[in-house]
Amino acid sequence: MKLKNKSKNGTKFKANVELSKLKEIEKEISMLKSANALLYWDRATILPAKAVLERSDQAAYLSKLIHEKLISNELKKIISTLSEPLHFNKLDKISQLIVKKYQKDLKKLIKIPTSHVEDFSKLCIKSLGAWEQARDKKDFKVFEPFLEKVLEMKLKEVNYIDSKSHPYNVLLDDYEEGMTVDDVKKVFEKLKLGLLELIAKIKTSDKYVKSKNLSNKLNKLKFPIEQQKEIIEDIRKLILVDMDRTIIAESVHPFTNTISPNDVRITTAYRKGQPLFAFTSTAHECGHALYELDFDPKLRDTILFNAPSYGLHESQSRIWENQIMRSEEFWKYYFPKFKKKFPSLKSMNRQEFYELMNQVKESLVRIECDEVTYCLHIIIRFELEVALLEGKIKVKDLPKEWNNKYNEYLHIKPKNDKIGVLQDMHWSEGLFGYFPTYAIGTMYSAMLFKEMNKDHPKLMQEVRKGKVDTVRNWLKDNVHKHAGKYLAKDVVKKATGKYLSPDDFLEYLNEKYGKIYGF
Amino acid sequence: MKLKNKSKNGTKFKANVELSKLKEIEKEISMLKSANALLYWDRATILPAKAVLERSDQAAYLSKLIHEKLISNELKKIISTLSEPLHFNKLDKISQLIVKKYQKDLKKLIKIPTSHVEDFSKLCIKSLGAWEQARDKKDFKVFEPFLEKVLEMKLKEVNYIDSKSHPYNVLLDDYEEGMTVDDVKKVFEKLKLGLLELIAKIKTSDKYVKSKNLSNKLNKLKFPIEQQKEIIEDIRKLILVDMDRTIIAESVHPFTNTISPNDVRITTAYRKGQPLFAFTSTAHECGHALYELDFDPKLRDTILFNAPSYGLHESQSRIWENQIMRSEEFWKYYFPKFKKKFPSLKSMNRQEFYELMNQVKESLVRIECDEVTYCLHIIIRFELEVALLEGKIKVKDLPKEWNNKYNEYLHIKPKNDKIGVLQDMHWSEGLFGYFPTYAIGTMYSAMLFKEMNKDHPKLMQEVRKGKVDTVRNWLKDNVHKHAGKYLAKDVVKKATGKYLSPDDFLEYLNEKYGKIYGF
Repeated sequence: MKLKNKSKNGTKFKANVELSKLKEIEKEISMLKSANALLYWDRATILPAKAVLERSDQAAYLSKLIHEKLISNELKKIISTLSEPLHFNKLDKISQLIVKKYQKDLKKLIKIPTSHVEDFSKLCIKSLGAWEQARDKKDFKVFEPFLEKVLEMKLKEVNYIDSKSHPYNVLLDDYEEGMTVDDVKKVFEKLKLGLLELIAKIKTSDKYVKSKNLSNKLNKLKFPIEQQKEIIEDIRKLILVDMDRTIIAESVHPFTNTISPNDVRITTAYRKGQPLFAFTSTAHECGHALYELDFDPKLRDTILFNAPSYGLHESQSRIWENQIMRSEEFWKYYFPKFKKKFPSLKSMNRQEFYELMNQVKESLVRIECDEVTYCLHIIIRFELEVALLEGKIKVKDLPKEWNNKYNEYLHIKPKNDKIGVLQDMHWSEGLFGYFPTYAIGTMYSAMLFKEMNKDHPKLMQEVRKGKVDTVRNWLKDNVHKHAGKYLAKDVVKKATGKYLSPDDFLEYLNEKYGKIYGF
Repeated sequence: MKLKNKSKNGTKFKANVELSKLKEIEKEISMLKSANALLYWDRATILPAKAVLERSDQAAYLSKLIHEKLISNELKKIISTLSEPLHFNKLDKISQLIVKKYQKDLKKLIKIPTSHVEDFSKLCIKSLGAWEQARDKKDFKVFEPFLEKVLEMKLKEVNYIDSKSHPYNVLLDDYEEGMTVDDVKKVFEKLKLGLLELIAKIKTSDKYVKSKNLSNKLNKLKFPIEQQKEIIEDIRKLILVDMDRTIIAESVHPFTNTISPNDVRITTAYRKGQPLFAFTSTAHECGHALYELDFDPKLRDTILFNAPSYGLHESQSRIWENQIMRSEEFWKYYFPKFKKKFPSLKSMNRQEFYELMNQVKESLVRIECDEVTYCLHIIIRFELEVALLEGKIKVKDLPKEWNNKYNEYLHIKPKNDKIGVLQDMHWSEGLFGYFPTYAIGTMYSAMLFKEMNKDHPKLMQEVRKGKVDTVRNWLKDNVHKHAGKYLAKDVVKKATGKYLSPDDFLEYLNEKYGKIYGF
């Protein structure tokens, strides 16, 4: 008995020693990631033009240090020791989840040769440059050979990891863990039909037909940047509340960037001819930022201090951007304030403004389109990606296939590649499998929003008064605080009782746009 | 013969292998330093308030990584191999300088236990906090025990490095390599006498006596920040020319921060009641920045890609701030432009403005004082530091000794410790031996400026037309491009034919202020 006791204590002791070694490594990785995130933030906001190459070197070096720590024998040994049932069973629940996550991630990570990681990262820099050039010249041909190489290397990577699965499943795992290409296909098929049906209804409505040839009045009004900035400060405070854990800056494309647990940053952009862009993009990025600010601090510096999927992350930005800040109720509260800032709105009433900011129009550019057509842009990209990876089409076919799909689903054809197949940078960096998360997030946002309203039937009455505490608290308790403890699909199941489906989203759209377009 | 040849090639080969290993380590150190510099810059400019502690952790970790690389056995071995005459003699001139610099620095670095470095860095964070509290309470007693501990640890460090030299010499070596406490004492004694004599002359001049009880008119005029910003942009472009290698931001105290060779940043501050503060501080920081931007790119990433001393660095900021931008000639060019921005100057003529911005007044605060009294503030600090390190006074005596010296040299006594002994943060971080570099730099600036005018007799006529290319080029060729290849005193000797002396500075002051105060 004594011996057994001793052995038990010994085991407990060993597990603790390994756990604290793990904590130390995680802390180091976390600090390197913070520094690397800052290098990125700074590059996208204020870096002097001539320092761009130096900055890539710095970022590549820190990435290498992080990668080396992740695939180090030390970490492998710690995880392998802690995975032994003898030790594993002695761990608390959170530590068990951490060990399991490392087991899974390391299994994948060690299969990819470091040389491949480095070569791919170098290729991406060139490929991104070629994409920029191709855009300037509005000519896909400039980008084509680079994209071919990127795709080839991405397929090689997929093969390293798992040569038996559908390649798209391997890719999806990086962004939407636990979801398969068949899951996505099924959901997207239903979503597509629902959207096409709704758009058809909208397009035959009287209101649509009447305004069909008029351009959106809002885009012609004056919205001085100084006043836009004041509005954006207001929105930031409304969503994020604690201004001592965040800052905002300007960048070409808005983004959210977490430097460390109390330092989550967003950017916005002021675009000519799109006066509401800064407003909606700030609401969007604040949604992302609030998610990261709400992670359970107990998980700090661990591998679980992350959102479980890009789709779930996107759902958090969409709820604030669309369900809250594009809602009729929000503008009942906010329009008088808004109008005061912008005298150009003097002769416009709230209803007209609300309808104009939610105008549906089949258009070419994903990041400028409305809520209804948005997911069709995503579905087009997903279908092209799958066809590429299954070898059904080739890189050189992309412009033609792209234009055909836009014609088929959105009844519009790009005049050139810049506003067609070259509009997103994602593929130039090898981000195949990423696009679906935008639509998955959009569907999740509707599911979560519906559940939130069930739990709090007076929620939108609060929004009408400018109160969003209930929204914030519900999201924190049901989504944010969990950080990476559970898979995204399980977080949503726990919160709503359902797995991913387009039903709630289509219901939300039909109700909102039925009211706007009168059917 | 064949054998000998073979051996020669073998040696050459070995030296090359070690050199390229060295280059790799230097590149890594350089990238870590860039990331660390960015952490610092960001903290001082935009970091969210609640992320301060996280930021210290990140910076401490990167500092540790850099320190570990510097004291690594690998680096020691490389330097020791390359120092062997067999290899050393095969190296090119620059590589020899690099090896010698490492030899010297490592000798010092390895004597200080890592635990001491860590303990001291932790102490400094506490000590800085105590200094801030003491300032708020205007009470030196709050800071006293921390400063005692800082001094004690600094003396311990001095002892690790060299227990036989005068402790001040060991400290000086960090900031003004190659200079001794006796050198400084001798030069400062002469400087002090010259300044006291000049101030006495100024104070008995008619102009001074008449305006003695009037406060400076400039400080009461309105200088809107938006217009100040435009002026500062103008000054930045004038001094730095290439705007793609630099940016400017705001911080509490202005500073210059080099992130990487093409990314040298400055900050400024807009202070109420000191309308010219942003202007003069920007000229000052641009001088620092131009130095770093002009380093010979061949020395990139090496230990020589640094200024050789803080004093020489300071000379570069002083030349632009004082000799150029506080000169009569510069204002002949700039006053009409300046006046256009600030209607509040409407009724003021150029001469009055020039004299007001160069008004001499015995005052309490170093960073707000004029060119003439500035070095007396430094000499007071130097004398107190030396007395402390020689054990002639104790930390608790500092407020009394400080006030006595201010009374003796500047005929003014601080009303409280905040504007007295607590005004600088330097001591709280253990920066003993740093203050003299401000006065050394000031003297160097006059020596270099005099030589520059000898080489280009029409230089100030160019300045009068707003042309400063000759200044910029002369500084680049005679100071900047060398970076850390030579000791500061040798750079100045090479450029001017002389070693440090207060003569040129006193001559410059006497001429300029004799003209202003009419003697």
